Amino acid sequence: MTSAIRPRLLILHQMPSQFIRPLERVFDLDYKDTSVPVTREQILSRIRANPPDAMLFPGGIKIDKEVLSTAGDKLKMLATFSVGYNHIDLKECQKRGISIGYTPGVLTNGVADLGVALLLATSRRISEAMKKARNGEWGKSSDIMWMCGKPLANSIIGIVGLGQIGLAIARRLQAFSIQQILYSGTREKQFDSEDDKKLFKFVQFEKLLNQSDFVIIACALNEKTENMFNKQAFEQMKNDAILINIARGGIVDQEALYDALKNGQIQAAGLDVTTPEPLPLDHPLLTLENCTIFPHIGSADESARHQMAQVCVDNLLNFFSGKPMVHQLKIDNL
Amino acid sequence: MTSAIRPRLLILHQMPSQFIRPLERVFDLDYKDTSVPVTREQILSRIRANPPDAMLFPGGIKIDKEVLSTAGDKLKMLATFSVGYNHIDLKECQKRGISIGYTPGVLTNGVADLGVALLLATSRRISEAMKKARNGEWGKSSDIMWMCGKPLANSIIGIVGLGQIGLAIARRLQAFSIQQILYSGTREKQFDSEDDKKLFKFVQFEKLLNQSDFVIIACALNEKTENMFNKQAFEQMKNDAILINIARGGIVDQEALYDALKNGQIQAAGLDVTTPEPLPLDHPLLTLENCTIFPHIGSADESARHQMAQVCVDNLLNFFSGKPMVHQLKIDNL
Repeated sequence: MTSAIRPRLLILHQMPSQFIRPLERVFDLDYKDTSVPVTREQILSRIRANPPDAMLFPGGIKIDKEVLSTAGDKLKMLATFSVGYNHIDLKECQKRGISIGYTPGVLTNGVADLGVALLLATSRRISEAMKKARNGEWGKSSDIMWMCGKPLANSIIGIVGLGQIGLAIARRLQAFSIQQILYSGTREKQFDSEDDKKLFKFVQFEKLLNQSDFVIIACALNEKTENMFNKQAFEQMKNDAILINIARGGIVDQEALYDALKNGQIQAAGLDVTTPEPLPLDHPLLTLENCTIFPHIGSADESARHQMAQVCVDNLLNFFSGKPMVHQLKIDNL
Repeated sequence: MTSAIRPRLLILHQMPSQFIRPLERVFDLDYKDTSVPVTREQILSRIRANPPDAMLFPGGIKIDKEVLSTAGDKLKMLATFSVGYNHIDLKECQKRGISIGYTPGVLTNGVADLGVALLLATSRRISEAMKKARNGEWGKSSDIMWMCGKPLANSIIGIVGLGQIGLAIARRLQAFSIQQILYSGTREKQFDSEDDKKLFKFVQFEKLLNQSDFVIIACALNEKTENMFNKQAFEQMKNDAILINIARGGIVDQEALYDALKNGQIQAAGLDVTTPEPLPLDHPLLTLENCTIFPHIGSADESARHQMAQVCVDNLLNFFSGKPMVHQLKIDNL
């Protein structure tokens, strides 16, 4: 291939060099090896200066109509470094005939582990506990109930969206002497073993809210799930329930969550995702002791990130050599 | 029973009233309903003022020769609110014919849950992550490896002491796509299922150190295990290994641990127990980003603490009505 016909690839995040090298061989790269995040203005101006054939970007960068029309007809493929895709205007991509590669599957273990980490950090009050180990409060109470958390043993776990990640979280929590897993979503799942048929129960969303001691959000963000956790939802939850969100911030109405946490409508919440991200430093949720907030690190484990990078590289290489992508997002029927 | 012949019980921690009431019916209580911890001088002076027939106290209070001889011949029973007993001079109790009740079993789930919480908090760098969600660093890096943690998937877990708690931790971690569990201790365990026989492998301590990605301390503190994790042990561990201690602080040589964490001999440590407790606020371990410290909250879950309190109450009531305790510590063969 001569340089003249090499496709141009715009990369919008920093990656270890072992993933850049195979791309360099095939693409003309527009890549800056720096951890400084790119601004929207910089993205638009780099697209204008060198219209790309493909773009590689993380879930935090919005690929909307303006970005797509700035790129114009030359753009044939998007490679998102994420399993989610609500940052991409899918209808516009469909209209323009742009193919989309994404990275499902490989981050399941990483996100499920982090989901359990967040649940335990919230239920066992880890943020408070770590503070007390450093501020002199440790050892200042003889109360046997000091720093007690909510037990998982015999609890009812509600999972909203029992997809690959939801199920991986369920499999982990299964080992914690829990009583039952309720799940809601678009359809009932078929389980083969008798044990699973007893453990998992498909229920209406309202019943899940009523009965669960822990409610875990593991569904995609879409028109049906946006602000699904609103005032009405919190009113239906148990007063000692704990809410965990490892999916997308937009599924939760954050003002209603603040009120629910402040007024004791629910006991505590753990969020790995917020609206917006990063959460502004003066956001009221950051003032609550019973709200544990992680900076969207669900897939931040070495193995998951390396595998996600490899899938992105393979999606790009395959697409431009006429082979099927490893994981292509279906956007035919929107 | 008239007041004159009621046995006297000294209680050295605060408990919810539902556990005080049944004791009040049988004992003359020396109990202060306050969360302010009692000092050693106060303990000795309360014993002198009203020599007790029994004492109820948590694991943090040292019951040594001086305390026992101050109490004198009247003292017949100790009820410790703990599964550990290295705070009690057992030989002196044996000599004086004092019976000891303790609370094994009921805190297994709580401590095992906390062990997994601590492992995940350490491996996924939760303390750092929560700071970055509040100090403006979230969103300031486009590096796909930002805040990456060590994956559990395919890892080798080493458990030092596969007792009830060690096994409960193993059962939980089994669900996290791990590769193998190595364990060391006084004897090999018999497993029935073929799956377990493949998963669990009894090895020498040195081999466990050499091969494990995560090393979890879950053994009792005794002459053999004191300072077992010293300079030599850390030198045998992998440089990217993570050490978790939910057992007793004395099993780890903290100076050697500090050096190992500082020099990259091991990657990180998570401690729920330290020497002493509370850890002094100027302790060097508190300055390390790769050392996660919890204020001994292993059994701090509502269900575990309530069950521990109930076992203590039953141990006391049974002993003084001539019945066997629920859980009596064997001290015949020391």
